[in-house]
Amino acid sequence: MFITFEGGEGSGKTTAIKRIIAELESRGYEVILTREPGGTPIGEQIRNVILDKANTAMDPRTEALLYAASRRQHLVEKILPAIKEGKVVLCDRYLDSSLAYQGGARNLGIEEILNVNLYATEGFEPDITFLFDIEPELGLARIAANAGREVNRLDVEKLEFHHKVRESFHKVAAMFPKRFRIIDASKGPDEVFNAAFQEIEKVLNK
Amino acid sequence: MFITFEGGEGSGKTTAIKRIIAELESRGYEVILTREPGGTPIGEQIRNVILDKANTAMDPRTEALLYAASRRQHLVEKILPAIKEGKVVLCDRYLDSSLAYQGGARNLGIEEILNVNLYATEGFEPDITFLFDIEPELGLARIAANAGREVNRLDVEKLEFHHKVRESFHKVAAMFPKRFRIIDASKGPDEVFNAAFQEIEKVLNK
Repeated sequence: MFITFEGGEGSGKTTAIKRIIAELESRGYEVILTREPGGTPIGEQIRNVILDKANTAMDPRTEALLYAASRRQHLVEKILPAIKEGKVVLCDRYLDSSLAYQGGARNLGIEEILNVNLYATEGFEPDITFLFDIEPELGLARIAANAGREVNRLDVEKLEFHHKVRESFHKVAAMFPKRFRIIDASKGPDEVFNAAFQEIEKVLNK
Repeated sequence: MFITFEGGEGSGKTTAIKRIIAELESRGYEVILTREPGGTPIGEQIRNVILDKANTAMDPRTEALLYAASRRQHLVEKILPAIKEGKVVLCDRYLDSSLAYQGGARNLGIEEILNVNLYATEGFEPDITFLFDIEPELGLARIAANAGREVNRLDVEKLEFHHKVRESFHKVAAMFPKRFRIIDASKGPDEVFNAAFQEIEKVLNK
């Protein structure tokens, strides 16, 4: 079983993932949590190229192809083997983050980014993708509160971008209604966890 | 103007390119010769990941995406700016090598590799692509002769692969009849040069 988690900052994604892992393990499932580039040496090398601050000349399409390459390696070297061994694989951000951030918010085109990534994944999709959905203003206020500070000017400037990301995630969710579950992440941690775990149980009990 | 050169080993591609550059320069054209990754720092970094001998776990699709990423960066950082400055850009192997080697000979599918590369190039194509076409047996004999040795067992084992590459180049040429010019590379260097330069002149005089 393969579950991916998507959503903006301050959406409580990390907290929910921790509780989901604990619950699955208490029921005897073997769980692995991963995120790109997934600790594969090739993926790490690719990520280093993407993140190297000297690479200011990097074209957005070069970046999109590198993310897809890193995803491919993560999938074949780590995710697929774990699924084959019967593990539950949780992935913190996956394909849909590329679609929403690069395709939508950075205007490269959701369809174009999807096309490149379908080559990387050969169409292999998660069983469930959770979208932890929250108003960017609220997510931001949570982050600032956790850091013990006020929301500042830079935060506010980023808000427009985060609104575009959120809107893009909704578009992507509408493209893949079978696997997407939209979780109202404005709720408290118990409610969020329960809503998500209910969906996992439905698939586990199939 | 953008001209790419494709073809197997021993096809006389390098010799012909040298003479074409000299001829174009003698007529007052500014010419640059490039090959992937084209000396762009990002392209070099990507190439290092592809060629790192430790990366034996690299999936063929990861490799194809990395080649496409390197091509993208080469195109936007080097090829397009030079064309914009009015230079004649010659590129020793380009897109079609990926199609013939990875797509055809290594069975990843010509259409699939094309699809990924169309994302990288945004459909930008060479004005002319020369296919230096030669029987692999003859190309191989030339290489061995240049190296002052006989054709050996390893060479012969590679022959089947080179036949697949040649066949794939012909398929690709048939897909893009407008830009492809097939040059009979079994001929001597003068004839090969003349045949190729005639085609360049036709486009220059348009």
